[in-house]
Amino acid sequence: MARALSVTREENFPEWYLAVVRDADMAENSAVRGCMVIKPWGWGVWELIQSDLDRRIKETGHENCYFPMFIPLRFLAKEAQHVEGFAKEMAVVTHHRLKTIDGVLQVDPDAELEEPLVVRPTSETIIGDTFQRWVQSYRDLPLLINQWANVVRWEMRPRLFLRTAEFLWQEGHTAHADQAEAMAETRTMLEVYRQFCEEILAMPVMAGEKPENERFPGAVSTYSVEAMMQDGKALQAGTSHYLGTHFAEAQNIRYQTADGQLAFCHTTSWGVSTRLVGGVIMTHGDDDGLRLPPAIAPRQVVIVPMLRDKPEDADVLAYCEALRSALMARHCRFGALRVLLDKKPLKSADKRWNWVRRGAPIIVEVGPRDVAAGNVTFMRRDRLRDGDKVLAQTAEQAAFVESAGDLLDAIQANLFAEAKSRFDANIRSDLKSFEAIVAYFGASAEDELDGFKGWVRVSWSRPSGAALARVEEQLKAYKLTIRNAPLVQPPQHDACVFTGAPGVEDILLARAY
Amino acid sequence: MARALSVTREENFPEWYLAVVRDADMAENSAVRGCMVIKPWGWGVWELIQSDLDRRIKETGHENCYFPMFIPLRFLAKEAQHVEGFAKEMAVVTHHRLKTIDGVLQVDPDAELEEPLVVRPTSETIIGDTFQRWVQSYRDLPLLINQWANVVRWEMRPRLFLRTAEFLWQEGHTAHADQAEAMAETRTMLEVYRQFCEEILAMPVMAGEKPENERFPGAVSTYSVEAMMQDGKALQAGTSHYLGTHFAEAQNIRYQTADGQLAFCHTTSWGVSTRLVGGVIMTHGDDDGLRLPPAIAPRQVVIVPMLRDKPEDADVLAYCEALRSALMARHCRFGALRVLLDKKPLKSADKRWNWVRRGAPIIVEVGPRDVAAGNVTFMRRDRLRDGDKVLAQTAEQAAFVESAGDLLDAIQANLFAEAKSRFDANIRSDLKSFEAIVAYFGASAEDELDGFKGWVRVSWSRPSGAALARVEEQLKAYKLTIRNAPLVQPPQHDACVFTGAPGVEDILLARAY
Repeated sequence: MARALSVTREENFPEWYLAVVRDADMAENSAVRGCMVIKPWGWGVWELIQSDLDRRIKETGHENCYFPMFIPLRFLAKEAQHVEGFAKEMAVVTHHRLKTIDGVLQVDPDAELEEPLVVRPTSETIIGDTFQRWVQSYRDLPLLINQWANVVRWEMRPRLFLRTAEFLWQEGHTAHADQAEAMAETRTMLEVYRQFCEEILAMPVMAGEKPENERFPGAVSTYSVEAMMQDGKALQAGTSHYLGTHFAEAQNIRYQTADGQLAFCHTTSWGVSTRLVGGVIMTHGDDDGLRLPPAIAPRQVVIVPMLRDKPEDADVLAYCEALRSALMARHCRFGALRVLLDKKPLKSADKRWNWVRRGAPIIVEVGPRDVAAGNVTFMRRDRLRDGDKVLAQTAEQAAFVESAGDLLDAIQANLFAEAKSRFDANIRSDLKSFEAIVAYFGASAEDELDGFKGWVRVSWSRPSGAALARVEEQLKAYKLTIRNAPLVQPPQHDACVFTGAPGVEDILLARAY
Repeated sequence: MARALSVTREENFPEWYLAVVRDADMAENSAVRGCMVIKPWGWGVWELIQSDLDRRIKETGHENCYFPMFIPLRFLAKEAQHVEGFAKEMAVVTHHRLKTIDGVLQVDPDAELEEPLVVRPTSETIIGDTFQRWVQSYRDLPLLINQWANVVRWEMRPRLFLRTAEFLWQEGHTAHADQAEAMAETRTMLEVYRQFCEEILAMPVMAGEKPENERFPGAVSTYSVEAMMQDGKALQAGTSHYLGTHFAEAQNIRYQTADGQLAFCHTTSWGVSTRLVGGVIMTHGDDDGLRLPPAIAPRQVVIVPMLRDKPEDADVLAYCEALRSALMARHCRFGALRVLLDKKPLKSADKRWNWVRRGAPIIVEVGPRDVAAGNVTFMRRDRLRDGDKVLAQTAEQAAFVESAGDLLDAIQANLFAEAKSRFDANIRSDLKSFEAIVAYFGASAEDELDGFKGWVRVSWSRPSGAALARVEEQLKAYKLTIRNAPLVQPPQHDACVFTGAPGVEDILLARAY
């Protein structure tokens, strides 16, 4: 049986990715450059991501708020280091009215704003302005805030979910009395992201600290969770920043200490975005389309009735309705089962393959013979084929209903295990020189598509400033970047592969999205 | 006991409103003109509004999506009637980069967009562009879509929640094969809004059709639910529009019928916004602050421990923790109880009054005497006072826990009943001439604040065009508007109060937000 997509991962990974996004009905490009339309199936995944992560954010003591999407230009001018990192890519509102002039609708030249407004690329500056009013005393601390919002960064090479001009995210912003507490917050949220990625997205990640040159503009330290895509590239899945007192000083976020002194707050910020959906696709997708972990599948079990415009259709439909009701009363680890009976006026084979491409974890087909025997025939999307052959199982209806929750839990665990063994098997730590790394990744960046390359773990001496810039240049020639220094480090390190100096930590090198 | 707010409804209703928004920690103005910061308590209310309404929208067959926030200028130019209604109030993005020139951060003059982008004031045009691609055949219909999003309309006189430049809403957009189906959809969603307002917000509304001059730009007919605020003014709480084929024609949304013809779709749109929060405040608030219906109270029961920095504090806290756990295992009509134990380092009296102002439905205070007796002392926020005296009840702990769910249901019902009797009592239908209406509302618009004025129900001949414009002018002189023609109409009508011609329907006149 041919694969359900027109292109395989091996043939062309970037095209395969776009084929999954399209054929799984996740999203599409809009008429606005770089901005996507998220379709119902893709949006359903994002809603489930939001719902679970929101719970985790609240359980760690944060409250949701909402801040304006527009940022006055002067706010950005306050934090020079911050704006330097973003200045090249913002949407700027300069006028507040359109007008029909000589029959043509256009920007009203008389309606120029006194001060341009920037559509938030991130909200540190506008939230800082608010924090400065909310924080007066040590009693107001810690201030633990999150918002779900759309943000805009003008992207030159947009790609659905991975890099879009407008994207959706949550951004946490907190203020603390001292560095220790702010750093603990930064690490707590990194760990929330790690657990969320692994437990809910079934996507293994490496948590670690970014090198100096990869820090968030204005941050003292930036941490990330990095996931490995099936082409071996890294995807930065979430970041958590300790901002020191930089933003507090720029925005005058001060508090009175218990002994009456004035002190600047230590702030943090952290976020994940709709990019996670791209990560899920490139972690779990196969040549038949998407495979969704049950935790984030808008429909975990889809029932396709095999109708033939014959009298027995009524029996098939009644059987399916009863099956749906029975399944909806069951639970898996992630709550009550989400079940769809697909009654659309399409051929059942077409519907089956639509759900394969969309990645529904369990697809049930019911025909007259199943009804007669009291059976169901179903496919596990995580184990769709044996070689080229599509696998279907038959079970007695009551037994299937009874075990459906456990089966979904097993699918979730299986998808994680599969991704985790690929993740673990593809981080090489036996390349001890820069030459060996170059030989592994190919003599030049031109060989990028020449087979699967994973990540490389090496020791380095953590060079800074100009020395780090040289390392960056050296890596860039091979399209490599430093992903992070994993939190868990070995007791000893090799010599630095870049400088030959004694190594002080291990870092991960990879090509990346 | 003095009231908890610095201004009463009677003294100055607009100032009272702002005092509630501020003292109940709902929202505040930001540094960006017309844009508000929604604070955690206000956001919690909005989250609960979203959650319940989203369920109703999904139960009626709609799927959520997300569309870009930017709309190309040419899209707006396509629908002349539509843009005419909005042209005066949009945020326009003209540039995509900032740059530091001569040390000053400014809009980069070299980064002008080829085509200006408008921040969506509503999404008919951008969604229509998508529908035109999604709809090919009658099999694709109906197409039933909703999105939760931020939108921007430049407001000259912003007011927190009621009229802000950026606001949050849901906007439903649907496409249908014919008028009958599209009209049924329009009415279904109006009814969803009516039920939602009454059951969840405990806010009585009148559902009806807007007159021609109050239609949404580009609509064939517009329906609304109108709520009555405590100053007698009307608040348009939600709208539902039948758009005919106007947008379909402008955007070429066509489908192939079963017999192979091409036909334009009939479309609808409908929405409610964060303005509902303002409606809740002005429906239920009193001179002690907000009163929240339990269905949308982020915390339905707040426990305030009376701590005195003494050894018995530990017993009080332990007792409160046990009470919280017991309450959290209980349910009311709106799900598991949402309970907070307020341990903030403030005086218990201050905390109590904070929660009174914020409108928590039940406020429990626990002191050493309650612990000793196994009691709780609590206040119902909906019946806080008898005259000036604040009412507190004492109950045996287990009995209180047992009945807490029922008590919350009773508070929800009581708030609705109170609002409903005020609503019913203040729609006058005995004013049979325009002179009588003028006499009721006061000789001129200058008398606006001169005591409470409700709504007036009169018959009219439904004039159109210039005749309707004259009626509008006539009403405007007294700051009156036609709110809607209620769906339920009497069998017969009086003569039109404006023209003297035979009446064809009853309409509601009111001052409005």
